[in-house]
Amino acid sequence: MEKNIRIPGFLANGIASGIKADGRKDLSLIYSRVPAQATGVFTTNRFKAAPVILDMERIKSGCVQAIVINSGNANASTGDAGYEDACAMSRAVSQVLKIDEDLVLVASTGVIGEKLPVEKVLANVGSLVEGLSEEGLPSAEEGIMTTDRFPKIELRTITLEGKEITICGIAKGAGMIEPNMATMLSFIMTDAKIEKDCLESVFRESVQRSFNAISVDGCMSTNDTAIIMANGLAKNASINEKSAGLQIFREALFDVTMSLAKSIVRDGEGATKLIEIVVEGAETESDAKKVAYAVARSNLVKTAFFGEDPNWGRIMSAIGSTGIELSPESVELYFEGIPLFSGGKGVEGNVKRLAEVMKKDAIGVLIRLGMGKKSFRMYASDLSYEYVKINSLYTS
Amino acid sequence: MEKNIRIPGFLANGIASGIKADGRKDLSLIYSRVPAQATGVFTTNRFKAAPVILDMERIKSGCVQAIVINSGNANASTGDAGYEDACAMSRAVSQVLKIDEDLVLVASTGVIGEKLPVEKVLANVGSLVEGLSEEGLPSAEEGIMTTDRFPKIELRTITLEGKEITICGIAKGAGMIEPNMATMLSFIMTDAKIEKDCLESVFRESVQRSFNAISVDGCMSTNDTAIIMANGLAKNASINEKSAGLQIFREALFDVTMSLAKSIVRDGEGATKLIEIVVEGAETESDAKKVAYAVARSNLVKTAFFGEDPNWGRIMSAIGSTGIELSPESVELYFEGIPLFSGGKGVEGNVKRLAEVMKKDAIGVLIRLGMGKKSFRMYASDLSYEYVKINSLYTS
Repeated sequence: MEKNIRIPGFLANGIASGIKADGRKDLSLIYSRVPAQATGVFTTNRFKAAPVILDMERIKSGCVQAIVINSGNANASTGDAGYEDACAMSRAVSQVLKIDEDLVLVASTGVIGEKLPVEKVLANVGSLVEGLSEEGLPSAEEGIMTTDRFPKIELRTITLEGKEITICGIAKGAGMIEPNMATMLSFIMTDAKIEKDCLESVFRESVQRSFNAISVDGCMSTNDTAIIMANGLAKNASINEKSAGLQIFREALFDVTMSLAKSIVRDGEGATKLIEIVVEGAETESDAKKVAYAVARSNLVKTAFFGEDPNWGRIMSAIGSTGIELSPESVELYFEGIPLFSGGKGVEGNVKRLAEVMKKDAIGVLIRLGMGKKSFRMYASDLSYEYVKINSLYTS
Repeated sequence: MEKNIRIPGFLANGIASGIKADGRKDLSLIYSRVPAQATGVFTTNRFKAAPVILDMERIKSGCVQAIVINSGNANASTGDAGYEDACAMSRAVSQVLKIDEDLVLVASTGVIGEKLPVEKVLANVGSLVEGLSEEGLPSAEEGIMTTDRFPKIELRTITLEGKEITICGIAKGAGMIEPNMATMLSFIMTDAKIEKDCLESVFRESVQRSFNAISVDGCMSTNDTAIIMANGLAKNASINEKSAGLQIFREALFDVTMSLAKSIVRDGEGATKLIEIVVEGAETESDAKKVAYAVARSNLVKTAFFGEDPNWGRIMSAIGSTGIELSPESVELYFEGIPLFSGGKGVEGNVKRLAEVMKKDAIGVLIRLGMGKKSFRMYASDLSYEYVKINSLYTS
């Protein structure tokens, strides 16, 4: 299986550099044989981690050749010294790889506010580069994982005008003990040739509908990062807004990011269920989003799903709390197609079917607002004892 | 102790009517010998429970003489039939008390979406009224409690121009197993004579700074209700905006509502700590409030406090997530006066003192934004295993 995870022109590796006290892998590198067209989506948190600040500046050029990532320390809230550590990481990698420093991005995930032990990174950059290989992506994924219970790698191939194109992504999810925060990192690699503006718009849309449509605990990290690199080695006619193949590329990319996003929710801290929340009939997409997030973030709703309790009243309460214009009489609620609320009151007689549905490990919640035609779809996890356990343990 | 809980002219009672399956008290009545000046603050949830809709209409007159309250069923999401049940409750009480039906308010708390067993209420209104007494307030408090671990009654007396005035409040908190949702109910009684507009403004302000400045789980109920009745039997010169005594009344009222609000947080579902969050130096009060609520509602912050983990980075992350204008360099963070973040990075050397502070059962968090002069203070609970346990159990 792992043998098949290859993207033409991309090499990767992951090693243990000693940042994680338990000796697990904590330093990864992704490298393209040629500079790649690249774009990224970063956290909107005002306290951006040092590597995020660095990457946002460098990626403006649209050109990236390597990404070095450490886990075990977020290098966030670390001031000027933290920024210099991020620069030192990229400089060391660029020197060994003999590429321009501006072509190297950096990502970190871990505890906030502690100084990065940058000397451990620097001492290991040599062997990190030395171990680069075409089969190295699973090992790179390992190096960015923290409390993730399983690796998250998705690969799709499409054919455009006779050329086979590979799109592959890795991700780490919202779930850590050691780093003590919920950071989402994802790196997408493709050998497609695609124009800068087109890559930006298609990637932004894909992230919006996948990584930005999931909720584990409603917390936004200082380090959230999603980057795509397209190295063009498939030698297809460069994809632009007018290409017939754009839609095929868009769908495959969305399939990769959405599959990674769902894996992140399934692997959310202590998650036992995947809850799909679809809001239809909203006046605006913003209204639909507000309602979906209010439901996804409600601890009362999340604990009810964990307890397999069909306590749909908590969802009505969450819907009503958003402040958007609503007529209670026009709202409808369904679990897996079973009507629960309609015409201003509960629908009776579904208790037994409902109890069955609550036992499933993926449950669809449909909310029809009856106010308009806009909709929003997102995925959320439940809230379990395990979440509290993971997040209340002090490990430093 | 309980003997002293009396407010001149007010009678109360609480009994078991059979709504709660375990035979605990579930039906309460508060009655003033004379019609009282009254005002209320109600949930802004779009799915308002039937009694909330009824009360909001009736209280416009500013005149209330009785409030009947049931626990064990919220009478919410119950449509027209639910509204008629609420009317039937108030009608039955008005008939036995021989007062105008419009002078009777209704409150309910419990599971949403199930029909209220109104026949149990109606069959017990006679004995509910019969048992009214000047010492009945603790019993009425018992009848509105659900998973509350302790009763919440606060009484203050002040003297205005030689007249002794009593202000007393009862409340039930965010914490229920049987009713399965977090509803806040509070009823304040005073024998003060006070003008309608003045009562409205002083009560609204008091609620804003107390009940509306606490967070247990960020969920807004369909039934939240706070009502004050002032029956004027103290025969003081009626308090108005120009009265010298207004400030004394305001402070005593705030003391009552704030003490009740803190009790609700301390008794929050599974709460083990009371966290005071003060945000200073905001450009607007709305900014200060956004930051305070982002911290108070963060499950990562709440679980860290439960675990006594001084993981202050999670607070920085929450502060940065609100979208308000911020300069990370100007933000300061303190736990119980101990500086943790300043000048864009963590303050070192406080680990030991911090570990001590985290063990306290009330912890003060001060956030200085350095952007302006506005501030906001609120209280939040932590997030424990017990919260998940209480809210994941299915009891129907």
